[in-house]
Amino acid sequence: MTRKILVLPGDGIGPEITAEASRILAACQARGLDIEIEEGLVGGSAYDEHGEPLPAVTLDKAKAADAILLGAVGGPKWDKLEDLSKRPEKGLLGLRKNLGLFANLRPAITYPQLASASSLKPELVAGLDIMIVRELTGGIYFGQPRGIEVRDGQRVGFNTYVYSESEIERIGRVAFELAQKRGKRLCSVDKANVLEVTILWREVMERLAPEYPDVELSHMYVDNAAMQLVRAPKQFDVMVTGNMFGDILSDAAAMLTGSIGMLPSASLNESGQGMYEPCHGSAPDIAGKGIANPLATILSVAMMLRYSLAEPEFASRIEAAVGKVLDDGLRTADIASEGTRTVSTREMGDAVLAAF
Amino acid sequence: MTRKILVLPGDGIGPEITAEASRILAACQARGLDIEIEEGLVGGSAYDEHGEPLPAVTLDKAKAADAILLGAVGGPKWDKLEDLSKRPEKGLLGLRKNLGLFANLRPAITYPQLASASSLKPELVAGLDIMIVRELTGGIYFGQPRGIEVRDGQRVGFNTYVYSESEIERIGRVAFELAQKRGKRLCSVDKANVLEVTILWREVMERLAPEYPDVELSHMYVDNAAMQLVRAPKQFDVMVTGNMFGDILSDAAAMLTGSIGMLPSASLNESGQGMYEPCHGSAPDIAGKGIANPLATILSVAMMLRYSLAEPEFASRIEAAVGKVLDDGLRTADIASEGTRTVSTREMGDAVLAAF
Ligand SMILES: CC(C)[C@H](C(=O)O)[C@@H](O)C(=O)O
Ligand SMILES: CC(C)[C@H](C(=O)O)[C@@H](O)C(=O)O
Repeated sequence: MTRKILVLPGDGIGPEITAEASRILAACQARGLDIEIEEGLVGGSAYDEHGEPLPAVTLDKAKAADAILLGAVGGPKWDKLEDLSKRPEKGLLGLRKNLGLFANLRPAITYPQLASASSLKPELVAGLDIMIVRELTGGIYFGQPRGIEVRDGQRVGFNTYVYSESEIERIGRVAFELAQKRGKRLCSVDKANVLEVTILWREVMERLAPEYPDVELSHMYVDNAAMQLVRAPKQFDVMVTGNMFGDILSDAAAMLTGSIGMLPSASLNESGQGMYEPCHGSAPDIAGKGIANPLATILSVAMMLRYSLAEPEFASRIEAAVGKVLDDGLRTADIASEGTRTVSTREMGDAVLAAF
Repeated sequence: MTRKILVLPGDGIGPEITAEASRILAACQARGLDIEIEEGLVGGSAYDEHGEPLPAVTLDKAKAADAILLGAVGGPKWDKLEDLSKRPEKGLLGLRKNLGLFANLRPAITYPQLASASSLKPELVAGLDIMIVRELTGGIYFGQPRGIEVRDGQRVGFNTYVYSESEIERIGRVAFELAQKRGKRLCSVDKANVLEVTILWREVMERLAPEYPDVELSHMYVDNAAMQLVRAPKQFDVMVTGNMFGDILSDAAAMLTGSIGMLPSASLNESGQGMYEPCHGSAPDIAGKGIANPLATILSVAMMLRYSLAEPEFASRIEAAVGKVLDDGLRTADIASEGTRTVSTREMGDAVLAAF
C-alpha cells in the first residue's frame, strides 16, 4: 500500500532543509519504499499566500497523509501581526490540535563526533541519551478561558492550565512504554507543590505505575528538573511532562547537547500518524544563505520511517549515513570545529545521499 | 531607630545555616548596627508545632519586622500531606503574598574562586553576573480559579495564569531601575507567541521602555531563554519574567554558576521591606549533619543590609569576608575541589566571622 507523505517546508530555513530531507525520501522511494510525496504551505508562507497560517487545503492534505515532514515556522516578518490567530505558530499549533498529535517525542542525544560542541564539560554530556515526552495538545497552550479583558478599569491577561485524567493517562502510557523499551526509568516533571493541575498529573502517573512494574517512576519539580538537566543530565532516561514545561525543558535539553541542529522530533496521535520536525526553529537570520544544517530534518525522516511507516531498516540506514558523514569530518557552520570541513546545506545533503 | 529582624530557620538545613547567618548579624550588632533579632517558625516545623505552615504569630512578627531572614522550607516528612494548604511551601507562599513581596531578585554570579565548579566550560561562566527579576505574588502561583473537580465524569485539574497591567508595570519598573544601575540591558521573557497573558506582559514592558531611554529592552520566548542560558549565559544582564517562568529560569541560572550554595536572594515589597533567603532548598538529605554551606544565607544577610536596612558598608564587609574565606581555600563539601580545605557549616561560619 502506498503511504502518503506530506512535506510542509514552512518559513525561514524550512524550505532549504526540507529540500535535502525530501531528496533522502526520494532515494528511499528509488530503493523500493512505496510512498507518494506531496507538498503544502503552512505558517508565514501560507499566510502570505492564503491569509491563513493553516489553510483548509493544507489541513485536508495533512489529514489524508500517513506522515508529515515539517521544516519550521515563524519569523520577524509576521511577529507584528496584531491578530494572534494569524501568526505562523498558529499553523503549527493547529496541525497538532486538529490531528490530535498529543505525544511529542524529543530525544536529546549527544553524537560522539560532536560532544565537544556542548557548552557543558565533555564528561557530563558524552553518551547523553534522554527522551523527553511532552504532552502536545493540551495544557496551557489550549486551555480555556483565555484572553485579555478589562477588569476593574485595567486590562488583565489570562490563560488556563488544564489537564483531565484521560489526557494525562494517555501521555503517561506513551512515556511508560518508551521507558520499557529503553533504560526503564521514567521521571515525571510537575510543580505539585504549587499547582493543583500537576497534583492530578502526579496522581495519575502514580496510578499507572503498577501496570509497568519494570519501570522505575520518579517525580521532580520543574525548577529542580531545569537544574538537574544543567548539573548532571545523564541521570535521566525518559522524562514526561506537560506542554509548557515540556517546551522549556526539551529546548534546554536539546541545547545541552551542543548540537540542536542535529535533533529530530516526532509528534504522534493515537493511530500512529505523525508529524516530524527538527527541534530547531526557522532561523530567519540565516534563511536563504544555504548554510543551515539539514541533518535534524534528515534524522526526522528516519524517525518517521521508524514510528509512522514501520520501516526501521530504512531508518537505520539513514542514521548510519549521517554517522558516516560526521565521521568523515563534514560539518555545517553551526557544528563546525577545528579540523573539520565546513560545508553548505546542499553539500551536506549530497554527502548523506552518497553515504546512503 | 532600632530595626527589627525576624529570623525564620524553617526546615531541613534551615536551622544550621541561619544559625551561622545569625552570628554574623550579632557581629554587626556588636559593631554598632542598631537591630533587634527575633525568631519564628515557618514551614514544616511550624506545622508540627501549630498545625499550620504559617501560624498567625509568625505572620504578625513578619509584618512587624523591617526584614526577614529565611532558611528554607519543605521536606519528605510533609510531602504526603493530603491538604495542600498545610504543606511547608504554603508558609513561604503565604509570607510572600501577605507581605506583598512582589519583587524577587535572584542574582546568578560566578565567584572567580569557584568558576571551575560549574558544569559549563569555564570560559562560558567566568565573570558571569546576571540578575533575574521574578514577579513573586501573582501569575499562576496565585491565580483563581484553581482546583481539581469532576467534569463529564472525570477529574480535571486547572490553574489560572493571570496578570493585570498594574502588576506587570510594578515589576517592570523594578527591573528597568535595576538595569539602569547595572549593564543597562533588560531582557523580558515571555511566551507571547502562544499565551495571551504574556502578550499583555510584552505590551506593558514596551510601554515602559521610553521612560528608561538608557536601558535597552529586548524580548525572548521562555524556551529560547532556557536555551540561551545554557548556550551563552553571559549575553544577559537583567532578565525580568513572571512567577512560574522565573522559578524555572532562576534555578537554571543559579545552577549554571556551579555553586548554588553561594547564591542569596531578596524578595521586596513596595515599601522596601524584604525577605532574604538562599536560592538553594532545605536539602533534607544532609540536614543535621553540619555540612551544609551557610554562605548563601550569610550573603542573604548582606543583601538585607543593602536593600532593606540601607547599610551598604556592613553589606560590603560581609561580602569581603566571604571572598577572603574563599581565597583562603575554605570550602564546604558542596563546593569542595582539589587543593581546597573542606570544612563544616560551623567552621565556615567561624571563618567568615574571623574575617569580618
Ligand atoms: C513555535 C512554538 C509555538 C512551538 C511551541 O511552543 O510549542 C515551539 O517552540 C516548539 O517547541 O515546537
Ligand atoms: C518552594 C517553592 C514553593 C518555591 C517556588 O516555587 O516559588 C521555590 O521553588 C522558590 O523558588 O522559592
